[in-house]
Amino acid sequence: MITIRLDATKPEPMYEQLYQHIRQEITGGGLMAGSRLPSKRQLAAHLHCSLNTVQAAYSQLVAEGYLDARPKSGYYVRRLEGVVALDVQSFEFRKAVDNKKEYAYDFSYQGVDQTSFPFSTWRKIARQISTEFESEFLKTGDPQGDPNLRSTISNYLRQARGVYCQPEQIVISSGTELLLLLLIQLFEKDKVFAIESPGYEKLGQIFRSNRAAFVPIALDESGMLPDQLAKSGADVACITPSHQFPTGVIMPVNRRIQLMNWANEKPGRYIIEDDYDSEFRFDGRPIPSLQGIDRAGRVIYLGSFSKSISPSLRISYMVLPPDLVRTYHDRLGFYICPVPGLAQKTLNRFIEDGHFERHLNRMRICYKDKRETLVGAVHDDLPNVSVLGANAGLHLVVEARTVRDELDLIRLADQVGVKLYGISSFYSNPVKMRGDPKLLLGFSALEKPEIIAAVKLLKQAWEGADCG
Amino acid sequence: MITIRLDATKPEPMYEQLYQHIRQEITGGGLMAGSRLPSKRQLAAHLHCSLNTVQAAYSQLVAEGYLDARPKSGYYVRRLEGVVALDVQSFEFRKAVDNKKEYAYDFSYQGVDQTSFPFSTWRKIARQISTEFESEFLKTGDPQGDPNLRSTISNYLRQARGVYCQPEQIVISSGTELLLLLLIQLFEKDKVFAIESPGYEKLGQIFRSNRAAFVPIALDESGMLPDQLAKSGADVACITPSHQFPTGVIMPVNRRIQLMNWANEKPGRYIIEDDYDSEFRFDGRPIPSLQGIDRAGRVIYLGSFSKSISPSLRISYMVLPPDLVRTYHDRLGFYICPVPGLAQKTLNRFIEDGHFERHLNRMRICYKDKRETLVGAVHDDLPNVSVLGANAGLHLVVEARTVRDELDLIRLADQVGVKLYGISSFYSNPVKMRGDPKLLLGFSALEKPEIIAAVKLLKQAWEGADCG
Repeated sequence: MITIRLDATKPEPMYEQLYQHIRQEITGGGLMAGSRLPSKRQLAAHLHCSLNTVQAAYSQLVAEGYLDARPKSGYYVRRLEGVVALDVQSFEFRKAVDNKKEYAYDFSYQGVDQTSFPFSTWRKIARQISTEFESEFLKTGDPQGDPNLRSTISNYLRQARGVYCQPEQIVISSGTELLLLLLIQLFEKDKVFAIESPGYEKLGQIFRSNRAAFVPIALDESGMLPDQLAKSGADVACITPSHQFPTGVIMPVNRRIQLMNWANEKPGRYIIEDDYDSEFRFDGRPIPSLQGIDRAGRVIYLGSFSKSISPSLRISYMVLPPDLVRTYHDRLGFYICPVPGLAQKTLNRFIEDGHFERHLNRMRICYKDKRETLVGAVHDDLPNVSVLGANAGLHLVVEARTVRDELDLIRLADQVGVKLYGISSFYSNPVKMRGDPKLLLGFSALEKPEIIAAVKLLKQAWEGADCG
Repeated sequence: MITIRLDATKPEPMYEQLYQHIRQEITGGGLMAGSRLPSKRQLAAHLHCSLNTVQAAYSQLVAEGYLDARPKSGYYVRRLEGVVALDVQSFEFRKAVDNKKEYAYDFSYQGVDQTSFPFSTWRKIARQISTEFESEFLKTGDPQGDPNLRSTISNYLRQARGVYCQPEQIVISSGTELLLLLLIQLFEKDKVFAIESPGYEKLGQIFRSNRAAFVPIALDESGMLPDQLAKSGADVACITPSHQFPTGVIMPVNRRIQLMNWANEKPGRYIIEDDYDSEFRFDGRPIPSLQGIDRAGRVIYLGSFSKSISPSLRISYMVLPPDLVRTYHDRLGFYICPVPGLAQKTLNRFIEDGHFERHLNRMRICYKDKRETLVGAVHDDLPNVSVLGANAGLHLVVEARTVRDELDLIRLADQVGVKLYGISSFYSNPVKMRGDPKLLLGFSALEKPEIIAAVKLLKQAWEGADCG
C-alpha cells in the first residue's frame, strides 16, 4: 500500500503531492514494473483523501506514461526503459567574466542622438494605435508587413530617395541582418556574393554563418572596383553607394553605370544597395538611389529606420524587383513578418502625420552640427590628422600622419578612456595596412561638449607619442 | 551658355531646378563630355540668381559624379561610360489576383481567443514602461534579449514547465521561425535534422529553404519512432513531446527516455523540444518538459508567447544547453535581438506582476470550455466522427468513419462556408492516407456559438454525402 502524509496546508494541491510521491516510488524502484496499484477507492480510504485526489494523481501518471490503465483491471506500473535519472538537472552556469571596459567617450559608429527624439509624440501615437487597433494585437498580420506602412514607405522612397516601387515589392523585417537571411534563402544555393572591403563587418559574418559563398572586392576612390568584381565570379554585389561604409565615399554616376552594366550583362546578377544612412547628407540634396536608375530589375534596395529613428525600433525593409517578388511569394511566403503589427502601424502614423520628416530635418541639423564640431576639434587639436569622406552620415574617417600604426593609436586612446575603431577591422581579409593609419569616428551618440573633450584627450594621448 | 528659367514659386529650391536641368543636359547629350561649364560667377549673372544657387547645383553634380571640379580651372562634364537610361523606371506591378475565399467559420489551428486579453492592463504597462525607460528606446539592447525578461522566463519555466536553466542560456527572438534560423547556423553544416511526420509544416519549409538536410520520421501512438530515428542518420531530432502537433499525442515517459538515450549515445546529437502550446492542458497538471530530465545538455527547449498571449506579439525564446551557449557567443553573438527593448520590458512586467499567470488561468478555462463545446457538438451532430488526442491544446484531431476521403470532406465543408484542415498536409512526404480520413479542428479563435453553428453546417454538408 502507498503511504504518504498528504498535507492540505502545502502550496501544492494534494493530488500533486500524491502524484509526485508515486512518481518517485516508480523511478526510484520502490514500485516495481508490472505491479498493480491499489484501486482508487482503496487508496482514497487509506489516505483519508477524496476519490478525486487519487483520480487526478493516477490520471496524471497515466498521461505521462508511468502507469498503464487497463479497463476493468486497474492501474499498473509501466516498465521504464533504460536508466535515466529523472531528477531535474541543476548545474551551475559558469558566468562569462564581464570584462567590458567602460569608456569616458566612445566614438561608436552605431547609435543615434540621445536627446532629440520626440518621445511624447511617439507615445501619443502608440497609445492611439493600441486603442484604435486593439483587436489587431491578437491577429497575425500580413507576412510581408503592414500594407499601409508599405504604401507609406513606397511614397517616402519615391520622394526622398528616388526609389520607384509598388508597396507589393516591399518586405518589412526587423533589421538588415534578417533581410539578408531572407535574401540568402531567396537566391539559388550557388550564388556568390561580393562584398565591399573595407565594408560593413556583419555582411561577411552573416554569409559565413549561413554557408553562403562570398568574395571581398577592393574599393578605389569611387567605390567597388568593377574589374575585380567582373573577374570574381560573383553574382550578387552588396554595395553602399550613397555613403560607403566605412570610407564615406559617395559613388559617382560613372561607377554606378559600370556596376549596373555588370549586373545587366548576365542573367541572375543582382546588386544589393544598402542605403543605411542616406538620409543624412549635410550639403546639397541626398544622392539619388541606384535603384532609381535600374531599368531591368537588377537592384534590391535595403532601407532601415535604425539611423533615422532608433536601432532599437528594429524596423527595416527591402524593395525587391518584380521578378524576385514572385520568387519570394513562392519560396519564402511562409515567413511571418517579425515586426508586431501595432509597432508597424505606429511607425506608419508617425510618418504619415509628418513627424518623421520633421524629425529628419531636426536630426540633419543636429548631426551636421556635431560633425562640424568634430571636424573643427580635429582641425584645432590634431594638426597631423585629416578628415576623409563626404559631408554626410553619422561617422567620418580620419587619417593620421604618423609612424605609429592603427593599433598604437587605439591603445593610446584607450589609456585615456576614449574608444576608437580602426579601419582595418572592416577589411574581410587580414590586410597589412599601408600608409598612414585610418580611424572611424562615429559622432551620433556623443554630445558636442563630449566630442570636444574626447578630441582634447586624444591630443593629450597622442602628443607625447609623436603623432596627433 | 546654360539657359533655364529658374522659378522661385516652384516647390523645388532654385539650386535643385538648376541641378536637374544641367543633369538632363549631360545625360541627354546636350552638354558633351569634356566641355567646360561657365564659371559660377558667369552663370549666376546670366541666370540672375545668387552665386550660392549655382554653387549648390555644381556641388551636387560633382558629388554625384556628373562634373569634375578642377582647381583653378573650372567645372568639366565627365564622360558617362556605357549607355544607361538614367530616367527613373516606372513599371506597373502586376497585382496578384486576390482569390482568398471568405469563410463563415474557419477551424484554423492558428490564432488565439479574440475576446479575453487584458488590453487595458497591457496598455497601462506599456505606457509606464515607455516613460520609465524612455532613453532605452534609442539604445541597442542585449543581443540575447533583455536580461530581466530572460531571468523572468527562467523562473517561469522552472515553476510551470520543469525547465531548469540560467538566464544566460536563454536567447529571445521573434518567432520560432527565427530561432530555427539561428539553430541551423549554430550547428555544423553536415547536421541532419529529423522532423515528425505528420508535424508542423513550417519545419520542412525552413530546413529546405536554408538547404539544411532533414528526414521525416514516422510516429506511433507515443510519438517519434526511435528505431526509425536511429536508422535515419539524423543528428538533431525536432519533437513536440508535450502535445504532438498535429496529432495531439502526449509523449509517455518511456518514449522520452528512449529519445534521450538516442541523444546521449553519440556526441553531437541533440533534441529540439518545441513546447508550443504546453500551457494548455485541461485536466491535471502540465506535462513536465523533456529538458527537465536532460542531464547531459542534449535538449534545446523552444518556447513562445504566440499561443499564450498573441501570435502578433512576436516574442519567442530558446533555452540552449551550456556548451551551445558558448558556441552561440562565438558564432552568432553578432546578431542583434530582433524584439524591441521596450516590448521585452513590457512583457517582463506583465509576467512579473502576475498578469500572465492570471491570463493563463483564464485562458485555460476559456479553451477547456471551447474544447468541450466542440467535442460535445461533434458527439451530438456527427455520430460517425470521433475525437482523438489528449485533452490539451488549442486544436483537436477528429477521425471520420466514411468511404469518402479527406479532400472530399474538406470540399463538402468548403461548400457550406466552413474551412477545414486535413491531416495529410502535415506529412512531409506525400502519403496515401490509409483508413478513415482525419481532420484538424482548431477552436481557439472561434466563439462557442460559432463552434456549434459550424458543426451544424458540417452535419448538413456531410449527411447527404454518406458520412458525418
